[in-house]
Amino acid sequence: MPRVHIDVMLKDEILDPQGQAVQRALPTLGYEAVRNVRIGKHIELDVSDDTDLPSMIDGLAGQLLANPVIEQFTWRVDTD
Amino acid sequence: MPRVHIDVMLKDEILDPQGQAVQRALPTLGYEAVRNVRIGKHIELDVSDDTDLPSMIDGLAGQLLANPVIEQFTWRVDTD
Repeated sequence: MPRVHIDVMLKDEILDPQGQAVQRALPTLGYEAVRNVRIGKHIELDVSDDTDLPSMIDGLAGQLLANPVIEQFTWRVDTD
Repeated sequence: MPRVHIDVMLKDEILDPQGQAVQRALPTLGYEAVRNVRIGKHIELDVSDDTDLPSMIDGLAGQLLANPVIEQFTWRVDTD
């Protein structure tokens, strides 16, 4: 049964206040090497074997899991 | 400048109510093929080139971005 990993992130041109808050805190915590932080969602799905993954994921992530106005998604598959 | 991707997920033995809520909604929305859903955080960091990534990420993700009592993390690097 393939496991699908979907990453949903705010589009690059959309401000990410959660990422900025972490980024501003890091230098005082000793992590000066980190230049840019963005935070989004990671979703793992186990999907039955006979599924047409690209069309399913375009529908699922593009319409339900991500808000296409402000978010973009990427996905990859681990096959067991 | 390498880009580090960190996925923070609840440990397998910890109940994931957000994932379960999505999982229960999917069959009525036409996605019967999805068997199991877990939802966590995806964090992208741009890090300066001379950084010792494994030790930095063990500290950053293991102590700050993830709660080690209930969460686990995985990471990978894209090098530009």
